[in-house]
Amino acid sequence: VSAVPRLQELETPAAVVDLDRMEANLQRVAAYTREHGFSWRPHAKTHKIPELGARQLAAGACGLTVATPREAEVMASVAEDILLAYPPVGETKIQRVLALPEVVRLSVAMDSLEALVPLARAAQERRRRVGVLVEVDVGMGRVGLPEPPQAVEIAVRVADLPGVELDGLLFFPGHVREPLGRQGPALAAVSRRLAGFLEALEGAGIAPRVVSGGSTPTLWRCHEMTGLTEVRPGTNLFNDRTTALFEACGWEDCAYSVLATVVSTAVPGQVVVDAGSKALAREEIGGGIAGFGSVLDRPEVVVTGLSEEHGTLGLEATDWRPQVGERVRLVPNHVCVSVNLQERLWGVRDDEVVECWEVAARGR
Amino acid sequence: VSAVPRLQELETPAAVVDLDRMEANLQRVAAYTREHGFSWRPHAKTHKIPELGARQLAAGACGLTVATPREAEVMASVAEDILLAYPPVGETKIQRVLALPEVVRLSVAMDSLEALVPLARAAQERRRRVGVLVEVDVGMGRVGLPEPPQAVEIAVRVADLPGVELDGLLFFPGHVREPLGRQGPALAAVSRRLAGFLEALEGAGIAPRVVSGGSTPTLWRCHEMTGLTEVRPGTNLFNDRTTALFEACGWEDCAYSVLATVVSTAVPGQVVVDAGSKALAREEIGGGIAGFGSVLDRPEVVVTGLSEEHGTLGLEATDWRPQVGERVRLVPNHVCVSVNLQERLWGVRDDEVVECWEVAARGR
Repeated sequence: VSAVPRLQELETPAAVVDLDRMEANLQRVAAYTREHGFSWRPHAKTHKIPELGARQLAAGACGLTVATPREAEVMASVAEDILLAYPPVGETKIQRVLALPEVVRLSVAMDSLEALVPLARAAQERRRRVGVLVEVDVGMGRVGLPEPPQAVEIAVRVADLPGVELDGLLFFPGHVREPLGRQGPALAAVSRRLAGFLEALEGAGIAPRVVSGGSTPTLWRCHEMTGLTEVRPGTNLFNDRTTALFEACGWEDCAYSVLATVVSTAVPGQVVVDAGSKALAREEIGGGIAGFGSVLDRPEVVVTGLSEEHGTLGLEATDWRPQVGERVRLVPNHVCVSVNLQERLWGVRDDEVVECWEVAARGR
Repeated sequence: VSAVPRLQELETPAAVVDLDRMEANLQRVAAYTREHGFSWRPHAKTHKIPELGARQLAAGACGLTVATPREAEVMASVAEDILLAYPPVGETKIQRVLALPEVVRLSVAMDSLEALVPLARAAQERRRRVGVLVEVDVGMGRVGLPEPPQAVEIAVRVADLPGVELDGLLFFPGHVREPLGRQGPALAAVSRRLAGFLEALEGAGIAPRVVSGGSTPTLWRCHEMTGLTEVRPGTNLFNDRTTALFEACGWEDCAYSVLATVVSTAVPGQVVVDAGSKALAREEIGGGIAGFGSVLDRPEVVVTGLSEEHGTLGLEATDWRPQVGERVRLVPNHVCVSVNLQERLWGVRDDEVVECWEVAARGR
């Protein structure tokens, strides 16, 4: 800790995590999932930091979710149960995930025989047992089998093939983007879709042990998705502007921000900071919501423009008139893609830097 | 070269540069700037790779442009003339740029006394001479002084202060986003704005040696910006979907693509590949142009959706029906932010991988 600089000394842009807020976020999701009897398998894509994966496990997570072989490899240093919620397509990816330490219980999500068959063959050759979750589409329309008979077909093949075993179903309700209080109809539709898949499996004599779903926007209403056994929120660890605007957290629950310095006040009505799209990430929220982020302690001040190394803060809604050299902390719209742009995150309590983590699972 | 994998062996997503196309792009800009008597100072933020900076210099560039201290430090291994087109605000940034090797001729752009005075003081203390370009706004409204008297005020201070010397003016015409053939009125407006600044400087007895401007969209009409002496295109080295749609390059001039693998065909009407916003970068073009990129050899196939590790390709405009496991090369909307997401780029001739470069100037 002695080598850690003070907050004022960090060169900007620098990504900062408020530890008190992060720990409160952890405890809140742990309590919610305990209360409803869900397995909690947080998605490590949000932080890509093994030390934070370890804290999630210590707080009660049953294992970790990852999206890439690299994330699996890095998280294997702390987790003994890893779900790759992404099909490993191609021989090198298959071999990488099968080379994870023996102690790791590995499961994989997929929606095609083309992904399943080569994995099962390679798993058998390496005498490794891999769990499979059949990915189904409950309305997002991105990946996942839309029709129950298709899911049954894959599930039956999993049961037949050596090397793999059926864990159950997986879905991602990423299409549910209403504010928390208005998700009722969308969640009911998810439950109906899930019921269709579960009935079809039952009709084929298959009883899935796991039904894995959930997202940060729907997190606190996951218990309304009938049949769910496991939730995989990622963003929730840090939260972000989108999560707050969707009412799935309070603004004061935003634990992650990018410390930035004002570098220009030349153009009237705005100031420009040194955190641009290469620090905050350019991600629009949609639905008529403007801006790419907000100032942590002045949420009315919005990032109205973003180029690679320039973030523009509009001053319409504030009397604040910062000078060149003043520092601000910005909450991005989407924390996961902002973290992916950082080499390291700094953990702070109040304004004291107390930890530094390498974002070790970035890249490939 | 013997250790370099073949294109078919690269694990996806992987960023690939067509060397023949890149070299043609280099020769084209070198010829244009030679023809019009411009200094050519390409922006290294696009590639962040010293080996490519060296090729730009070998092709006739007078020096390199950078945006961050890190880019300056990395490019100092190949360039003896570096323009930091960004004010170094804060003591650590100032000290980093002043610590560049003595052999490097350093200049810096800025639009405030708050940025100028500490830099000049530190430069004098270190007995280093730093060139200053006063940044002016010619219509973009991001940074740069909007009014000629403001620019004169800074220029006069530069002339007075030890440690710094006035090189001239700098601007970025990033607001000119019409297709090449329709830029006439916007370029005439830029020329008028420039004339106002140049007349005001002349009235104060100041003759700028350098007037640095230009962008990739305006590159081939830079000679219509009256007074310009230097151009700083970045994107032009690789080009991208935006550049092609703005008619500042042909589609066949796009040298950069992200190799990706189809991982899901479950949802009808589309396929999903393993290049998402963490590989392509999520950057909208605006102006009613949909999509985040296109398939290199099927530009009618557009990236219609992008989440972190999923890119969705719409199949409306094509009879092509790829299977899970098939590979495609995707041209992103904005190449600079996509390169910034890569650990390395692979240089290919036809389909043979012949080079690999670390993206060394990423990060801070």
